[in-house]
Amino acid sequence: MAKSSIIGIDLGGTNLKCALLDSNLRIKAKNYFSTKSFDNKLKLIQGIADSINSFILRQGIARNSVSGVGIGLPGPVDTFKGVVHFLPNIPGWREVGLKKILERKTALPVFIDNDAKLMALAEYRAGQAKKYTNALCLTLGTGVGGGLIINGSLYRGSDNAAGEIGHVPINEKGPLCPCGGSACLEAYIGNTRILKEARKLFGPTITLEKVSALAKVNNRRAINLWVNVGERLGIALSGIINLLNLDAVVIGGGVSDAGEVLFESTRETIMRRAMSVQGKRVKIFKARLGNDAGIIGAGYLVKERQVR
Amino acid sequence: MAKSSIIGIDLGGTNLKCALLDSNLRIKAKNYFSTKSFDNKLKLIQGIADSINSFILRQGIARNSVSGVGIGLPGPVDTFKGVVHFLPNIPGWREVGLKKILERKTALPVFIDNDAKLMALAEYRAGQAKKYTNALCLTLGTGVGGGLIINGSLYRGSDNAAGEIGHVPINEKGPLCPCGGSACLEAYIGNTRILKEARKLFGPTITLEKVSALAKVNNRRAINLWVNVGERLGIALSGIINLLNLDAVVIGGGVSDAGEVLFESTRETIMRRAMSVQGKRVKIFKARLGNDAGIIGAGYLVKERQVR
Repeated sequence: MAKSSIIGIDLGGTNLKCALLDSNLRIKAKNYFSTKSFDNKLKLIQGIADSINSFILRQGIARNSVSGVGIGLPGPVDTFKGVVHFLPNIPGWREVGLKKILERKTALPVFIDNDAKLMALAEYRAGQAKKYTNALCLTLGTGVGGGLIINGSLYRGSDNAAGEIGHVPINEKGPLCPCGGSACLEAYIGNTRILKEARKLFGPTITLEKVSALAKVNNRRAINLWVNVGERLGIALSGIINLLNLDAVVIGGGVSDAGEVLFESTRETIMRRAMSVQGKRVKIFKARLGNDAGIIGAGYLVKERQVR
Repeated sequence: MAKSSIIGIDLGGTNLKCALLDSNLRIKAKNYFSTKSFDNKLKLIQGIADSINSFILRQGIARNSVSGVGIGLPGPVDTFKGVVHFLPNIPGWREVGLKKILERKTALPVFIDNDAKLMALAEYRAGQAKKYTNALCLTLGTGVGGGLIINGSLYRGSDNAAGEIGHVPINEKGPLCPCGGSACLEAYIGNTRILKEARKLFGPTITLEKVSALAKVNNRRAINLWVNVGERLGIALSGIINLLNLDAVVIGGGVSDAGEVLFESTRETIMRRAMSVQGKRVKIFKARLGNDAGIIGAGYLVKERQVR
């Protein structure tokens, strides 16, 4: 029987997204859970296993028609051994052999990787980075992650840990970061930090969606908040663009929905701060696959790893 | 007649170094000129041509035994078209077709590239980066330049402009940089800036060599000066190491002669600020080829370009 389905999972600091994909990686069904509804690591792992198993039951598909499960995780992962090193924004994860645990709990082949790498893989195979040989794809969410396409391939680095643009410092001194460093980009523009700023300006019930809506109707303070986020992102990107002479930067994740005000500020900062040759070359795009990039990338991971 | 010699040239903000290399890229003879002794761009180009021509005359070798001239330049270069885009620390250079001009003036094949890329190529082929698949080789001099080895090859980026670690910002706001940006690493640890700091501490006749000598005999202020340079370099490197998950960083150029105090401070900052997986992986070395890396890399450029 032909393996006709793939399960793609994207674990974020906020949501656990599960999707059933067909063999062309079209999304057939999706489920969202709140990551915080799981008290600890063991419950979260059991929650992932349950969601895979109940998915199969509820969708009425045969387990042996599922070719595999791909999972993106928000932190450094040994994709070949299937071990999660740690998750900066989800406490309690240290050297977890997630692949083996889930293969036992689901009786399916499981492949894991860093979520931002999978988003980059998806945008490069099927999205906005398709034509670009040297590209950085980044996700702005609870964490700020990234994946690099270098000379037309996903660049993993020496331990599959490359791409951590959220942990590029933008100041010598600055806020401590859960990664152990300080003044990391993520410590300034991770969504919890942006929300904290927004609450100071608009009170405790504000959401980032509301800040975006306010910016769209020309609320000056809302516009300034996104301009500041774009400037800080633009400063970090200027350095990376000078260093890597990229064709394209593709920006996704929840915060990228802030809209044109964020992208304009990012582009303007890069034009002002990056070197002329590198600044002229690079194009800054919004991710095309949106919130689905992670689960589609998880699908590509299963497809590409099984071909080997 | 076998082509048995290569001329390697390394143009820096301070010195113009010319060397005669044999076919194994061993240095047979060297000449140094002060870059500042040439008043302007045209005189400097004529000076390069004269040094090539008089080299051949003085060394008594036949022009047709020279297989080519390789030149490293301190700025972004189109290595394939042979055009220098600009030189941040040498005024007056904008889109100069140096390859063609010098081929006319010397009747020899000329190949040009960014100096830091050639230093990286030399350290990767024959020096400290030899065993490392993902490495950054940087030069600390008047400018702070770099070359990246990615997956075992010199990484050029989309316009051969990759590697500009000197223009990675280490603060949101900071001193203007000749590149047009601000708060660039080079604006803090380029040797002119270090010398300015040193003059404040030790008076107008101090040299960086003397500061190093003072640090070696435990002069507290001299040690602090190099510790600060190492910290700033370490902060920039932490971000790059988090992003690229490198095996090795190789540090050369005049400032790297400051010695262990600089390297210790750089390593200590990286251990403190880089992410755990990336920080554990990376090794920080002093360049092995020293001040000759640029001219040897220029030799490799001639050898490798002529094979194509």
